[in-house]
Amino acid sequence: MKKSLYPLFLILYCSILQGQEPDRVIRGIFDDALTDRTAYGNLEYLCKKTAGRLDGSPASYKAVEFTRDALKKAGADTVWLQEVTVPHWVRGTERCTVVSSSKGKKDLKVAALGLSSGTDAAGIEAKVIEVHNFDELKTLGKDKIEGKIVFFNRPVNNKLINSFEGYGSAVDQRVSGASEASAYGASAVIVRSVTQFTDDYPHTGVLHYRDGVKKIPAVAVSTIGADLLSDWLKNDPALRVRLVSTCKTLQDTLSYNVIGELRGTAETAEYITVGGHLDAWDICEGAHDDGGGCVQAIETIRLLRNSGVKLKRSVRAVMFMNEEMSSTGGRAYAAEASKIGEKHYAAIESDRGVMSPRGFTFDADSSRLEKLQSLSRYFAPFDIRDFDRGGGGSDIGPLKALGALQIGYIPDVQRYFAYHHSANDTFEEVNIRELQMGSASMASLVYLLDLLHY
Amino acid sequence: MKKSLYPLFLILYCSILQGQEPDRVIRGIFDDALTDRTAYGNLEYLCKKTAGRLDGSPASYKAVEFTRDALKKAGADTVWLQEVTVPHWVRGTERCTVVSSSKGKKDLKVAALGLSSGTDAAGIEAKVIEVHNFDELKTLGKDKIEGKIVFFNRPVNNKLINSFEGYGSAVDQRVSGASEASAYGASAVIVRSVTQFTDDYPHTGVLHYRDGVKKIPAVAVSTIGADLLSDWLKNDPALRVRLVSTCKTLQDTLSYNVIGELRGTAETAEYITVGGHLDAWDICEGAHDDGGGCVQAIETIRLLRNSGVKLKRSVRAVMFMNEEMSSTGGRAYAAEASKIGEKHYAAIESDRGVMSPRGFTFDADSSRLEKLQSLSRYFAPFDIRDFDRGGGGSDIGPLKALGALQIGYIPDVQRYFAYHHSANDTFEEVNIRELQMGSASMASLVYLLDLLHY
Repeated sequence: MKKSLYPLFLILYCSILQGQEPDRVIRGIFDDALTDRTAYGNLEYLCKKTAGRLDGSPASYKAVEFTRDALKKAGADTVWLQEVTVPHWVRGTERCTVVSSSKGKKDLKVAALGLSSGTDAAGIEAKVIEVHNFDELKTLGKDKIEGKIVFFNRPVNNKLINSFEGYGSAVDQRVSGASEASAYGASAVIVRSVTQFTDDYPHTGVLHYRDGVKKIPAVAVSTIGADLLSDWLKNDPALRVRLVSTCKTLQDTLSYNVIGELRGTAETAEYITVGGHLDAWDICEGAHDDGGGCVQAIETIRLLRNSGVKLKRSVRAVMFMNEEMSSTGGRAYAAEASKIGEKHYAAIESDRGVMSPRGFTFDADSSRLEKLQSLSRYFAPFDIRDFDRGGGGSDIGPLKALGALQIGYIPDVQRYFAYHHSANDTFEEVNIRELQMGSASMASLVYLLDLLHY
Repeated sequence: MKKSLYPLFLILYCSILQGQEPDRVIRGIFDDALTDRTAYGNLEYLCKKTAGRLDGSPASYKAVEFTRDALKKAGADTVWLQEVTVPHWVRGTERCTVVSSSKGKKDLKVAALGLSSGTDAAGIEAKVIEVHNFDELKTLGKDKIEGKIVFFNRPVNNKLINSFEGYGSAVDQRVSGASEASAYGASAVIVRSVTQFTDDYPHTGVLHYRDGVKKIPAVAVSTIGADLLSDWLKNDPALRVRLVSTCKTLQDTLSYNVIGELRGTAETAEYITVGGHLDAWDICEGAHDDGGGCVQAIETIRLLRNSGVKLKRSVRAVMFMNEEMSSTGGRAYAAEASKIGEKHYAAIESDRGVMSPRGFTFDADSSRLEKLQSLSRYFAPFDIRDFDRGGGGSDIGPLKALGALQIGYIPDVQRYFAYHHSANDTFEEVNIRELQMGSASMASLVYLLDLLHY
């Protein structure tokens, strides 16, 4: 072509790139995702063959091997394991029997909280005192609490529309209840499961013991069990509970983050990380929490590779280990990145379950948020409209210090806590299209982020 | 107060009413809905005690009685039944056996299509010809089709984001396939279930026979069964299928719409109708389709009554009978309204499953739509953002001729067809919060509509 026409060509080319090309690429990503069953198959494997993949468990190492292979199959240029030191806590026998002189005997469904101390095989038997917050403990005082089992029974506030806020309204009892009660001489704690739902699944989760307090046993009880216990206590405040929970904390051990990289074309490498966490509670298949996030991250690699688009930035899919207990996987990833001076542009975490996508949250100031919100127009054809301010997630959090934009993938929130940390978190509770739509959203956002600021 | 201050007071009052009051009322409606289990209990009853409540069935009359009582308990001022003539079709024995000389024998999961003709008890046996659209029938012609069973196997287009559009991409085979094939002398049709999902549930639904064609038997086969049959046909085009479907169409019979009314304060009555359909396919509990819509309509009455707000317009919750086969319930309701000269301002239909609410569609021109979209700001705190142009639903459709604004309640669409018209449409597949959020959305919109134009 004539030289004089070149600027005009360039303008045309750029306007096409800005206008049509992203729509075409993103449509292609969604088409691919919605007609491919690889991610769903990967999730089935994680759920059915590596259920209960808590740190240090045989299932967790099997999940490491499986996702390493899956990342290779997805088309990652390089796949490697990154060492992570993880806690090693193992559940034992669990039994919680309510013994009431007026009502009789009843076994409640319980699950020890992660990192909690155990009882011996005989367990403990004690009176129970029901409380709803830490102020009540203070009011009751050591006289009324010592030697008893403290029963934390404050329900989630169901009026909170965002179910994660609801979770936040009650989870202090699970995380700190044992420490708070122990300070007043309690012998153990039973915590109402942190969920919006009335079900008979104990929903477990981690606790933290405060320095200096005696580490007392702690279990979650199903919400149905909690309602029953509360009901019986009203009739018979002197009832007793026999609690057995022979869990144990072993030595910390070695595990791995699994990382797959799609190399970018830029000379100076810069990274966009997408990730979920590979560990899951030992009583769950870990479908929604967070097998889904893992396979969506793997699928992001497959979708971008398949799209044929050459990204300038390198994309990393990371299966973080140990999100559930002490987040050493996320810290190890950021520490290594910092140590070798990697440039991290952005990170997206998918750890809010596998529901229909609503959008993303960005940890950005107003002017940057506005720019990011302008990308939402590309998602409108897929009915994904929410580009809001908010956090990323606990695994990618440590990357913030390296300047990585924190992004949370946000699916619909209403039913997540029906599954969370319970035996109800199974493969069967995941809908393939909701999974696929999420993967396509994440891959599309990575592609769009790569067009920005380079 | 001094007379001269009155206009100022009025302005202040009105601005409060426009500004704060709707937010407060709507927040109250959501709080009530999210902490009340009545609607969920009503749905459980409909699913577990009146499963398979197809027109003319004992279960359908039980559902009429139950919802009549539920409307009274919800606080409706008047509750009545409205006569509707309905078809009376009953399923019989069903069996579909593939017999292949190379592959052996296999029973496929099938369900007769609603209003289809039956076989005798011995059934029919014939060769099978697979087609994907009506043009293929034309190309094949009578020579190749006569006496055979036509197998319609065009899958839903999974690339369509809105799953209802996906449904629309394949449902012609179910509705008209029998007529089209019959015109070429086919002996029966087997239709691939109209769903995005790979499952072993036959998804039934109604068919219509064109005037003048022989009414041949027609069944839906599960998508897993369809894939198997297609696979076997590739290896053995001469395989035969034995099909038994002893369904029968009896005389039309009498049934009822169930109507509950909350009287408005205006002197001249004007109505806002909210509704779902009470009939459900005989092989389903009818949780998502459409027990959910019914109990949400009943809950709308309870929520508005409980809110203490006095609406000017009268609100009617209507359980329409016979949506699934010939929509006589919707037509009877509109015919009566027309006959007695009722003024119908708007109607909202909930018949898209019980998922998390995304918004509403309005059958309105641009200027009216813009006005209605201005109401969406009241739903933002509940993450309900989609106020789009679109239809209402088949039950309220006939009210359009009376000037009623047609409104569709729109929950998330991705997983609906995993349940639709199949035995997978059960109470267990409904999440209580997704149900509650929907009821609250509908009640809130009714309240806001009542503030408009009066």
